[in-house]
Amino acid sequence: MREVRLIQIEEDIQADNRLEAEKVRRRLEEAGTFMLNLMSSPGSGKTSLILKTIEAVQSMRTPAIGMAVIEADMDSQVDAETILDAGVPAVQLRTGGFCHVDSYMVAKTLPSLDLEPIDLLILENVGNLICPAQSDTGANSNVMILSVPEGDDKPLKYPLMFRECEALVVNKSDYLQMGDFDMDSLRRRAKKLNPEIEIFEVSCKTGAGVQQWAEWLLRKIGR
Amino acid sequence: MREVRLIQIEEDIQADNRLEAEKVRRRLEEAGTFMLNLMSSPGSGKTSLILKTIEAVQSMRTPAIGMAVIEADMDSQVDAETILDAGVPAVQLRTGGFCHVDSYMVAKTLPSLDLEPIDLLILENVGNLICPAQSDTGANSNVMILSVPEGDDKPLKYPLMFRECEALVVNKSDYLQMGDFDMDSLRRRAKKLNPEIEIFEVSCKTGAGVQQWAEWLLRKIGR
Repeated sequence: MREVRLIQIEEDIQADNRLEAEKVRRRLEEAGTFMLNLMSSPGSGKTSLILKTIEAVQSMRTPAIGMAVIEADMDSQVDAETILDAGVPAVQLRTGGFCHVDSYMVAKTLPSLDLEPIDLLILENVGNLICPAQSDTGANSNVMILSVPEGDDKPLKYPLMFRECEALVVNKSDYLQMGDFDMDSLRRRAKKLNPEIEIFEVSCKTGAGVQQWAEWLLRKIGR
Repeated sequence: MREVRLIQIEEDIQADNRLEAEKVRRRLEEAGTFMLNLMSSPGSGKTSLILKTIEAVQSMRTPAIGMAVIEADMDSQVDAETILDAGVPAVQLRTGGFCHVDSYMVAKTLPSLDLEPIDLLILENVGNLICPAQSDTGANSNVMILSVPEGDDKPLKYPLMFRECEALVVNKSDYLQMGDFDMDSLRRRAKKLNPEIEIFEVSCKTGAGVQQWAEWLLRKIGR
């Protein structure tokens, strides 16, 4: 038996912002807006998935689905510009060094959007598998992306994120050819933490799997 | 001109743990131990690089370099077990949901290691490009890994991490064949934030570039 010494550091860092999150959800419900909180590590493809989702959703339903995006980033505004270029309203939320979005930040951001025509509001959270999982943003659904190059062991390391999400989008499925990622292991590990989690295999580069993901999302928002 | 609306949220979350970090550095100096703080996103290859570094360093110098590893994780202890299997002392630091390691955690961990024979102590920080960059651990050098699949735009999104590190290990260089990553852009963006940063191209899978990285590290610790 190998000896692993353990140093446990307890700290409750979950801000009690649930009340504010409930206010955000009431505001969204009044406007008929569904808010999706999209989380992942840096570079997993959040902005790419949003662009592909916009494209798919807009081609799949008539009348068109009203969409908008809140782009959270610590510093830059490149992602909001990318979304605006795709013809969708976007607001850049600069967290000023803060590592995740909480419901107070969302509450501060909502007045800058005209919610009435927005059926689906996507919040691109800060690229981080840890802190965003600990904070209710006021969203109606949490979804995470794991990209294939990150490895199939991530549920072991970041269990809370997998528990807090309704759906897991496994992006960059075109990288499966590199042979380092075992999809069955990933599914087993994710389902062990969260038996209800929906799993989608997607490549934002090739477009594979985007349709199935978009169908699920449209069912969630009742369209 | 596209209009990007900005909502700026100011918050100073940098804990003032610099004094404790100085104490950690004094303790390390007394023992003749050099501590490296290794940071990256989840899945960039921190544990793999540590394993490759152990292998390289131990084959490159006589007498052998004394090494040990502090493995920080929110939950699991799989990484510490991997390091122990490689024959190197390892301590698992469980942060209990905390998203980075600070100097107080290191101070609490050091007494469980016999520092005297340790020339090089590697701290594997929590997988996160944000919070670890904001907290002095007491290490003598900060190094980050960016893996090729994460994309060459990461300096734009996570500038503080690139500023705070002496060296950048670009891992998974075998993924460059996928053609999504522009190494020149990455170098330009990283150097713009931090002109002094040393950049190493490495593949922990093939071993490419590990030698150059290990040589730099050995020079840092004066061996």
